[in-house]
Amino acid sequence: MPTPDANPLAIPAPARPGQPRDQIDTPSLVLDMAVFERNLDRMQAAARAAGVALRPHAKAHKCPDIALAQTARGAVGICCQKVTEAIPFINAGITDIHISNEVAGAGKAALLASLARHARLSVCVDAAEQVEELARAVGHADTRLDVLVEVDIGQQRCGVTDTGAALCLAEQITRHDRLSFRGLQAYHGGMQHLRGHAARRDAAAQAAARTAGYVAALEAAGMHCAVVTGGGTGSVEFDLRSGVYTEIQPGSYVFMDADYGSNETAGGPAAMRFEHALFIATTVMSTASASRVVLDAGLKSMAVDSGLPWIWQDGKRSATLGYMAANDEHGIVQPLPGNSRSVLPPLGAGVLLVPGHCDPTLNLYDTLVTVRGEAVEALWPILARGLSR
Amino acid sequence: MPTPDANPLAIPAPARPGQPRDQIDTPSLVLDMAVFERNLDRMQAAARAAGVALRPHAKAHKCPDIALAQTARGAVGICCQKVTEAIPFINAGITDIHISNEVAGAGKAALLASLARHARLSVCVDAAEQVEELARAVGHADTRLDVLVEVDIGQQRCGVTDTGAALCLAEQITRHDRLSFRGLQAYHGGMQHLRGHAARRDAAAQAAARTAGYVAALEAAGMHCAVVTGGGTGSVEFDLRSGVYTEIQPGSYVFMDADYGSNETAGGPAAMRFEHALFIATTVMSTASASRVVLDAGLKSMAVDSGLPWIWQDGKRSATLGYMAANDEHGIVQPLPGNSRSVLPPLGAGVLLVPGHCDPTLNLYDTLVTVRGEAVEALWPILARGLSR
Repeated sequence: MPTPDANPLAIPAPARPGQPRDQIDTPSLVLDMAVFERNLDRMQAAARAAGVALRPHAKAHKCPDIALAQTARGAVGICCQKVTEAIPFINAGITDIHISNEVAGAGKAALLASLARHARLSVCVDAAEQVEELARAVGHADTRLDVLVEVDIGQQRCGVTDTGAALCLAEQITRHDRLSFRGLQAYHGGMQHLRGHAARRDAAAQAAARTAGYVAALEAAGMHCAVVTGGGTGSVEFDLRSGVYTEIQPGSYVFMDADYGSNETAGGPAAMRFEHALFIATTVMSTASASRVVLDAGLKSMAVDSGLPWIWQDGKRSATLGYMAANDEHGIVQPLPGNSRSVLPPLGAGVLLVPGHCDPTLNLYDTLVTVRGEAVEALWPILARGLSR
Repeated sequence: MPTPDANPLAIPAPARPGQPRDQIDTPSLVLDMAVFERNLDRMQAAARAAGVALRPHAKAHKCPDIALAQTARGAVGICCQKVTEAIPFINAGITDIHISNEVAGAGKAALLASLARHARLSVCVDAAEQVEELARAVGHADTRLDVLVEVDIGQQRCGVTDTGAALCLAEQITRHDRLSFRGLQAYHGGMQHLRGHAARRDAAAQAAARTAGYVAALEAAGMHCAVVTGGGTGSVEFDLRSGVYTEIQPGSYVFMDADYGSNETAGGPAAMRFEHALFIATTVMSTASASRVVLDAGLKSMAVDSGLPWIWQDGKRSATLGYMAANDEHGIVQPLPGNSRSVLPPLGAGVLLVPGHCDPTLNLYDTLVTVRGEAVEALWPILARGLSR
């Protein structure tokens, strides 16, 4: 390991509160607070109107300040996807966390059991070995855990695939004093991204019917499902009306990325629409070619698994400029077909992007620069960034 | 901002030195030291034999311990791609750093000029405005910078596109006392990943010929190019023999990812081959389905821009198992065609992956767990992780 310097050079902050937003150092992740707050209010109001609990997924934001803004509005707690991810939220005072995932290995079970001293924690299982491992861990730690059985309702990822297996696990959980069977997790990630509104509605109806089948089988066997949790930003409008879910766990609605922005929404006053609140502030760093400009943000500043980012101009997706390719630290911008090079921004110009996929993009940054109107408001640390164990 | 706890819960380390490697918490990034050292020695020996300087690219590893291992073997310094990225390396005692990129804006130029108090720094330009901005910055900071003109030799990204523009910039640099014109950067990223050995050889020859044309034009005008820097892991075997480059700047050879592993290498004793030294240690977290298992590592633990990871078994790419899909925190593993479900690993089993693209994968982790043989040797902090400004 290098010998640490007595006075090491510090990394400058990306912005200062009060600064004009066009002076944010780039690339930086920027949150438009007015839009963000509308998104939070809209989801909370919809959950409240449906009489369903909102437990937003913190894997999307990894930011305790955002979790506190969600619980202040009425969220019952948060979801985390990994055990270590929960730690900064517990430190920030979040007292009710659902690990919406299985945990692998005795070490993670022990950590989870020890964290249960500081917050009410629940976790998913889909195998008998996991139940036994959790039971041993809470025994050693002298704590308690709520346990949900994860059921596969079409995602084809984790979760048991028949009611017999779900019932076996539920009964196994009840045999351990320090574990409480709380109900089911039924999440279908794939359907969140079906573009057509009717296609999502139909997929959500099918998923809800499968979930209802599991609930009915467990209740018939005397295993009460106090919690049935699931749903994401693409499906919650249907999940809230399904009568099956007691709790929804959307994450991306906070930000809205280009992928979710590509979903069709319904018309009419009942439509649940969320707005783009999250941007990557970038700068044009090279204009040496006549046919393109190069931005200072590439693969290390955005996730591209769900597509390249949108260029955001005048409050909407640019109709003239496209982000065409991402290298590690460069982004290639060209005129969209039908436009001349005159639409290209000059050297040093700021360009805003809407990332393709918010969750893994947040996971690249240590700081979220919040803005209100044209001024920087605060720097929010993304404290769970990188906590994937 | 949340009120900080007086005694916040800490994030457990991924491993302890001396521990067996199969006890590393997952997902974690693991470096096999014996292979790593062979890769470093092989590249340094090739550069030395060719009489060309080796300046490895630190954007690949972002880890001062690795930079020190490179300079200890004879590397003349390192490349960084961003100004903030250089800071942890300066703190660790690296004294010669080339920013192999243009910098955008007065703030970054000022930071770069101030860092020049602590190390010899060079930077690229491809526009007159950049030269003037650098000149103002070193004037204010009372420091000096070496400046290289970046030329486009086929990458179609940054860099001037004709010899006249290159000459103009070189002459402009020499008009500023605190800036020194050092030569050219000529890098072609795209050709690094051409799969066929002959295709890469031909592309490298074409790139070297273009570079030689720029050098000749500048030298003819009296502008001496003391440094001609470029080359990457896929092209260095040709670049070293080209007679054009005074310096190579490969990065990925340290690790070798699945993308570079897919390049064909030549046969014979002269072939430059590098071995896979970097792995993601993962665990099977769900086996609820008969047709697949689920790993605990997805998009937040690896970059997938250059393809999904390989599963690594018995010192080579698995012929029976494939990593088929990455969700945010999950990886789906299935038998490859022709194999039955009996090849699937059991719940809790460890699975090693070779990431598709090393640079953005390193950028996701805070710690590199180094192993020698079957034991953990050290935890190396990836201190430039996330420093993309």
